[in-house]
Parts: sequence; structure tokens; C-alpha cells
Amino acid sequence: MKLIDALNWRYATKRMTGEKIPQEQITEILEAIRLAPTAYGLQPYNVIITENKDLLQKIYEESCPQLIIPQCSHLLIFKTMKTLSEDYVELYLAEMKKAREVDEAYIDGYRQRIHKLLENSEVDKFGWAALQTYIAMAYATIAAANLKIDATPIEGFNPKVLDKLLDLDTKEEGTTVMLALGYRDAPEDHLCGKPKVRKTMENLVEEL
Amino acid sequence: MKLIDALNWRYATKRMTGEKIPQEQITEILEAIRLAPTAYGLQPYNVIITENKDLLQKIYEESCPQLIIPQCSHLLIFKTMKTLSEDYVELYLAEMKKAREVDEAYIDGYRQRIHKLLENSEVDKFGWAALQTYIAMAYATIAAANLKIDATPIEGFNPKVLDKLLDLDTKEEGTTVMLALGYRDAPEDHLCGKPKVRKTMENLVEEL
Repeated sequence: MKLIDALNWRYATKRMTGEKIPQEQITEILEAIRLAPTAYGLQPYNVIITENKDLLQKIYEESCPQLIIPQCSHLLIFKTMKTLSEDYVELYLAEMKKAREVDEAYIDGYRQRIHKLLENSEVDKFGWAALQTYIAMAYATIAAANLKIDATPIEGFNPKVLDKLLDLDTKEEGTTVMLALGYRDAPEDHLCGKPKVRKTMENLVEEL
Repeated sequence: MKLIDALNWRYATKRMTGEKIPQEQITEILEAIRLAPTAYGLQPYNVIITENKDLLQKIYEESCPQLIIPQCSHLLIFKTMKTLSEDYVELYLAEMKKAREVDEAYIDGYRQRIHKLLENSEVDKFGWAALQTYIAMAYATIAAANLKIDATPIEGFNPKVLDKLLDLDTKEEGTTVMLALGYRDAPEDHLCGKPKVRKTMENLVEEL
């Protein structure tokens, strides 16, 4: 499918059928997330994937009263890091040194730039890491659409309740966004087939 | 090109040739941005596109000392809204009512959900709008890769200086991220052809 066709095909599906997505397509969506670019390549997040009925029901009842939670095939929950430890950064730099065959001077310059960001008190680290998380989430929506799989980003949940439900160490990380993956239940979804509401190109883009 | 191939092909290009991207491909990238999903569909951002040499040079000298700024074909500058006025929301709801042929009760429910978000003092509006902006930016990177156009997201600039340079009303909006579009200068770019450094799937994804 052509990209723009895929983007026009997708929409924020509100009702799903429960039909299961084949594992190889789930793997492709996760691979798109894995390849998503982030600042300095730090990927300050992790992803929980679940198709566990009991967990989905709990999330629906306690954190997010949206019917696609129990109706989806798989739910992705993005956990964003609140701090990046010295160890985390050093492990990443060691990986980079090996993969790119660069010298220690290169790595040291890179290390200094990362520290400059992480030590900048004007930057809200969790907010910055959430921005990177959204890039990965966006990549997943396109990878899904490309496979004719529906994907609905979900912000409207109670993150404190969800963090607790998932037993997160909330000093270290917090849930920021979810993505429900599945297949649209066309007859039941009032949004299915309705036109998108978007700014016109003239209202969106200014040439300077 | 297959999506995963395109994502493997792309990288954060550091040197570009200055070669110009054809207008129809720029239009496709902008269309991907226009179609990007956002919370409630509110698209709380605008995009400046420029290939103006003087402006690019000024941005390079005063806000962002990265060589791809003067070397790119087109620079996209994402301006994120700090507040969403009543008028902005109402205009959007009027568009939705027309496009989706829904009744006033539907619109009123939608209005209430938007207001609940906008009036939630725990939500940093600019931060929330920046997350939406990053979805659109991410869409542009994939649309570019799909066309074999390089696209480098840029956070490392001085937004205060850039806001001033662009004469923004900083009570209303602020620059959050840029995207340089162009073609990789392979012999000059030390990153070209180097392997990506990414978490393994096992380190990124947890199944529950």
C-alpha cells in the first residue's frame, strides 16, 4: 500500500473485533518501534505488549474505560524513563563504540553532549523522554497501517493507576501512552468511514 | 520500498549535498504531516518550511550551529501552540460537525472532553502539544524515507533565539523541533553506512 493511502485508511478506531493479529505482523510493528530515531539514539523507553485478557480487563476497569482495551488484539503500553543512569548511558556508548568502530575521542565527545543535555536543569527529563516515546509510538501507527492493522493511540487513561497496576518503579519510569492494535469493527464504530478532520495545507504550513 | 527497509535505510544524516527535493515529494511529506493523528484531532502546531538561503544561514549562525542547516534542501520548523483558544476549538468543532455530519449532542460531548483536558491544571499544555507535534514530525521522517529522502530531526537549537528570529508571539507558540530534508553527502558524512545502535528486541519489549 502506498504511504499516503495507508495514512488515509487509518483512523482512531474506537471499536475492534477482538480478532488476533498474526505474530509476524506484531513483530514487524515492534521492529518499526525498535528502529525509530530518538535524540542521541538513547531510546529512553520500553514497551509492554499484552494480549492477556485479565490484564486488559483490569486496565479497562481501573485505568482506562475505553472499549477498545478489552476489544483489541494486542495492547502496547509505552513506559518512559524518568532518569537515565550513568550505567545506562555508558552501556549505550559501549554498544556504539563496538557497532560503529569509532575511537574513544569520538565516544567522549558524544558522552559530553549527552551529559550536557541530562545535566541541563531547564530540561524536564521525563517530558523530553516522552517526546522520544511519541516518535516510537508514531512509527508503530504507520507500521500497523501499512499492514492494514488498526492502531489507536490512547492518552486518556489514569497513568498513576496504570503504573501501580503494572508495578512500575515510579521513581524510574512512568506510562505515557498506549497503542491498541487490532481490527476495526466497522458496523459498530461510528467513526469508521467518516472523513478526517484536518487543517487545510494552507492553514498548516507557512513558507518563509 | 518496504517500510522496514526504508527505516533501515534512513539515519540521522549529518552532511547533506544541497541538492533540491522536487516539489511533488515535498508535498507528499507535508501531506503525511497533515494526516498525522493527534489527541482529539486538534493538531496544536503549525509548520514553517523554508529553503531561503539567508534565513537558513541566520538560523545556522544564531540558533543552531549544525552544518545540515545551510546544507539541506528544505528545513521544516515545527511551531507548537502554547494555548488553544476558545475560537480555535470552536472552529475545529464546526469543521468536524460539517465533515462528519454529526449532531450537536455529539459535538457537545466532544467539546466537554476537550475542555476537560485544556482545563486540567496538572497537564502542561505546551508539553502536551509538543507530544502531538512529535507525532507529526515522526510521520514526516517516514514519508521522507519512503521517498529515499533524508530527514534529520533537530532538537539541538536555541528555541528562544529561533522564536525571536521567526518573530513568533511567544505567549501563543514556540518552536519545538526542526527537520532538515535533503540528500546525504555520503563521502562527507562519517555516519553514512554505519550500523544503527538500538536496543535488542529483548531489552526493548516485555510481554505481560
